[in-house]
Amino acid sequence: MAGTNSERELLTEGPAIILVEPQLGENIGMVARAMANFGLSELRLVNPRDGWPSEKAQAAAAKADHVIEATMVFDTLEEAVADLNFVYATTARQRDGFKEVRAPVTAAATLRQRFNAGERTGILFGRERWGLTNEEVALADEIVTFPVNPAFASLNIAQAVLLMSYEWMKSGMDDIAATPFQAVDQRPATKEQLFGFFEQIEEALDSRHYFHPPTKVPKMIDNLRAVLSRPGFTEPEISVLRGVISSLDGFQRRWPKGRKPKTDEAGHDGGNEGGDKGDA
Amino acid sequence: MAGTNSERELLTEGPAIILVEPQLGENIGMVARAMANFGLSELRLVNPRDGWPSEKAQAAAAKADHVIEATMVFDTLEEAVADLNFVYATTARQRDGFKEVRAPVTAAATLRQRFNAGERTGILFGRERWGLTNEEVALADEIVTFPVNPAFASLNIAQAVLLMSYEWMKSGMDDIAATPFQAVDQRPATKEQLFGFFEQIEEALDSRHYFHPPTKVPKMIDNLRAVLSRPGFTEPEISVLRGVISSLDGFQRRWPKGRKPKTDEAGHDGGNEGGDKGDA
Repeated sequence: MAGTNSERELLTEGPAIILVEPQLGENIGMVARAMANFGLSELRLVNPRDGWPSEKAQAAAAKADHVIEATMVFDTLEEAVADLNFVYATTARQRDGFKEVRAPVTAAATLRQRFNAGERTGILFGRERWGLTNEEVALADEIVTFPVNPAFASLNIAQAVLLMSYEWMKSGMDDIAATPFQAVDQRPATKEQLFGFFEQIEEALDSRHYFHPPTKVPKMIDNLRAVLSRPGFTEPEISVLRGVISSLDGFQRRWPKGRKPKTDEAGHDGGNEGGDKGDA
Repeated sequence: MAGTNSERELLTEGPAIILVEPQLGENIGMVARAMANFGLSELRLVNPRDGWPSEKAQAAAAKADHVIEATMVFDTLEEAVADLNFVYATTARQRDGFKEVRAPVTAAATLRQRFNAGERTGILFGRERWGLTNEEVALADEIVTFPVNPAFASLNIAQAVLLMSYEWMKSGMDDIAATPFQAVDQRPATKEQLFGFFEQIEEALDSRHYFHPPTKVPKMIDNLRAVLSRPGFTEPEISVLRGVISSLDGFQRRWPKGRKPKTDEAGHDGGNEGGDKGDA
């Protein structure tokens, strides 16, 4: 589809986003972008003030063309939700009536469950200035509202759509702590690798009489090993640190052992530069 | 403080939001607004392209004046984070290196835990066009990234700040399913109230020979009661429904029991209108 990266999966499923009498094309465009960011694609407009299509919406959508091009326009909210099985209304304020009020996480879980069961769902968002009327809220099944700063509660329409779209995306994840990419392997090095590092650094320090006075040597070694153990260094990190120690050790001592630091002691870039300088 | 409702609690605590070389004042203003929505207030700018203060930022902040007025400007990122104990970098793409990559929920929980322990924390956001450099990411402790549509992954800076601010707010809630206001009491009516409704509707239907043929009566009653039981109607809802039945019953039968529906059978507005019409 237009404006998307064909190599990566384009998510386009989930609840319809229904904007009731939106006023500004920019806001409609930002809504489309927020939807695309989190895998929604079905945008419906009820009686947009400035008509449709909208150049301003297109510009603000930042290439969410598949959302903008598929946008449907309706004269009434009743028509806009006619084919849906379950509808949320977003509102920032208490309403009279019998409808359950849900947090975004709860609403997203419900929408996901109903989506998985084959239901068609939607979320209503009101006008920029004053939201939805009570009559419009009454057409929905339940209410969703956002946990906001009590003294600064007004979310704009694109922000509200963004948050619901984000919660929709999270509701489909097996683990909400999962990330699309990971750090390099963060498994701590084996103890053998760690002890080899202890040996290197302690030998270098010992040759400089760092361990002094003799009565304190065991405690000093304990402290040093504790500092070096707590971070849980990985094998590549230990390679970097061994390179650093080799470099410091080599520069001062000018190869007292009669050899340069071996390259395989410095597995990371820059790790053996100091050693070469020491030799110059 | 300016621009806020003094009757409601103004939340102003939590991590600093640090924008590195932001370009557009509008974006800075929208960031301030998003922060205020979710109770953050400490905005720091590193070398903003168009200088500071910014009229465009002020306008876009939508009265988040307490954030705008307290914004601090720094020449370098190092200075901007100098007083902080723990810093996240936001990035949309994989980076080389050893930093842990966290989801927003995980990062927010960590920030909350460190905040509660008295640490000062911050979150870095990069330039509008191309984010943070590798060197800037290297100054942070960990990386946070958003679960986005793989084919439409670019969040704008205000959206990214909004999501982290929202997760920050949620991380402080005892229950993320809690809502700032609730529906009226949704406790189902007692069975006595429900059975009274059954009795009323069944009597009205029976007088019209609805239960027919006789062999199917038990099943018809079972089905009707199942339909009326499943919703778990509350006491006020049953009052509304009893008013509706009274109205329908009265209109058709012209008070065959010799009396109008009593007002106390119709607890909700409109519940006995039909009865009055039936009498006219």
